[in-house]
Amino acid sequence: MTSNDSLDQLARVLESRKGGDPESSYTARLLHKGPDAFLKKIGEEATELVMACKDADYGGLSDVLKSKIISETADLWFHSMVALAHYGLSPQDVIAELDKRVGTSGLEEKASRKAKDREVNESKGVNP
Amino acid sequence: MTSNDSLDQLARVLESRKGGDPESSYTARLLHKGPDAFLKKIGEEATELVMACKDADYGGLSDVLKSKIISETADLWFHSMVALAHYGLSPQDVIAELDKRVGTSGLEEKASRKAKDREVNESKGVNP
Amino acid sequence: MTSNDSLDQLARVLESRKGGDPESSYTARLLHKGPDAFLKKIGEEATELVMACKDADYGGLSDVLKSKIISETADLWFHSMVALAHYGLSPQDVIAELDKRVGTSGLEEKASRKAKDREVNESKGVNP
Amino acid sequence: MTSNDSLDQLARVLESRKGGDPESSYTARLLHKGPDAFLKKIGEEATELVMACKDADYGGLSDVLKSKIISETADLWFHSMVALAHYGLSPQDVIAELDKRVGTSGLEEKASRKAKDREVNESKGVNP
Repeated sequence: MTSNDSLDQLARVLESRKGGDPESSYTARLLHKGPDAFLKKIGEEATELVMACKDADYGGLSDVLKSKIISETADLWFHSMVALAHYGLSPQDVIAELDKRVGTSGLEEKASRKAKDREVNESKGVNP
Repeated sequence: MTSNDSLDQLARVLESRKGGDPESSYTARLLHKGPDAFLKKIGEEATELVMACKDADYGGLSDVLKSKIISETADLWFHSMVALAHYGLSPQDVIAELDKRVGTSGLEEKASRKAKDREVNESKGVNP
Repeated sequence: MTSNDSLDQLARVLESRKGGDPESSYTARLLHKGPDAFLKKIGEEATELVMACKDADYGGLSDVLKSKIISETADLWFHSMVALAHYGLSPQDVIAELDKRVGTSGLEEKASRKAKDREVNESKGVNP
Repeated sequence: MTSNDSLDQLARVLESRKGGDPESSYTARLLHKGPDAFLKKIGEEATELVMACKDADYGGLSDVLKSKIISETADLWFHSMVALAHYGLSPQDVIAELDKRVGTSGLEEKASRKAKDREVNESKGVNP
């Protein structure tokens, strides 16, 4: 099974949880509770991923820490895929966006453009 | 009682929880579990504050939403004060820093300086 | 000057930036851009505080790392105070909330209550 | 081109940026600056994704807001892939983890298990 299939399969599982009995699964419960439940998890899992990476910075890349980084990233991607499902979007939409950026170097261009905009907007004065 | 007294009193309560029975209180439990437990909460509460503010942006400034923003900010400040306690620091250290920045317009200057640094570091190229 | 005065003074400075020329100061610029500009900073500064604390976990509590934790906490509190100003709230509202919680042990009770609610809501099933 | 190819190709591009001239691209610059630069972005992009989703909650699922959610998710996944590249890991590791969880219902089981652990650890006392 390709990764593509994996993400699609996960997306289908998430989709099937919509409107399901909140007692029946963690995902059905998250979707039943509504956006704040899974959006909060996105912030939480992002922080946990950052902490796992800091552990690896200092503790070295042991198998345990590698697994932790992989696991936290999976948690973060999972909860963002729950959000995508809720809003009627799919991981393929995200991958198409990433693909477009890679193809045209757009992501890096976009990032630089945002930095430039910030430059224009944020650094014009030093007096309070 | 002044706010100063309030923050000092809270800091003393947090300090007194160090090494306490983890069964005895939420703070003792957080401190006993170690940094990751309260650091994770800082990320989580920051996200919850952001969500409460977005609710107010759209829902208007009802008393319920005002209370929610106040409550989430209190959660965020509380957990950052648990971190301060763990690292042997106090809210007064933070307030002194804020005071210094206000006094010299330093905070705004610092923010602008950081933006300028970013400018130099991040926006030099657009090609990938 | 007491800390109380410091926070009040900072709140007054932030208040005075509302509607000000966005070119004139960092705060006026943030408030002019609207909520997303400062809410995004709350998430960013929370992450930076977490990273500084992880550095201290591993690198020891040097003066440099203590200053970094203080500085990141000040950044986080500053941007949450910009949010408070935007929504017509004050640091005194937050301190009153913290004070109330300390007085009645409410914060710790509330935190435990939330954990209990989570218990009821989130752990009822293990099958997907 | 399948999505699998897309993610792999992006991973290869990110890999090729390691040790590259920081002036040459946004990714090379991030990797050159070191972990704090891209970890901070993970926290920032998670917050931006949450804000975009809140906009959709209130503003409806317009094409503009759908694009924004897709774009912010792409930013979040991109920066977590930069972290994966830095730590010698790949998106396939994350997808394998997600796949394993879907296959065994492990993710939902794990999430429930974590909630249960939390239950045991966090909710034992209400007195401060």
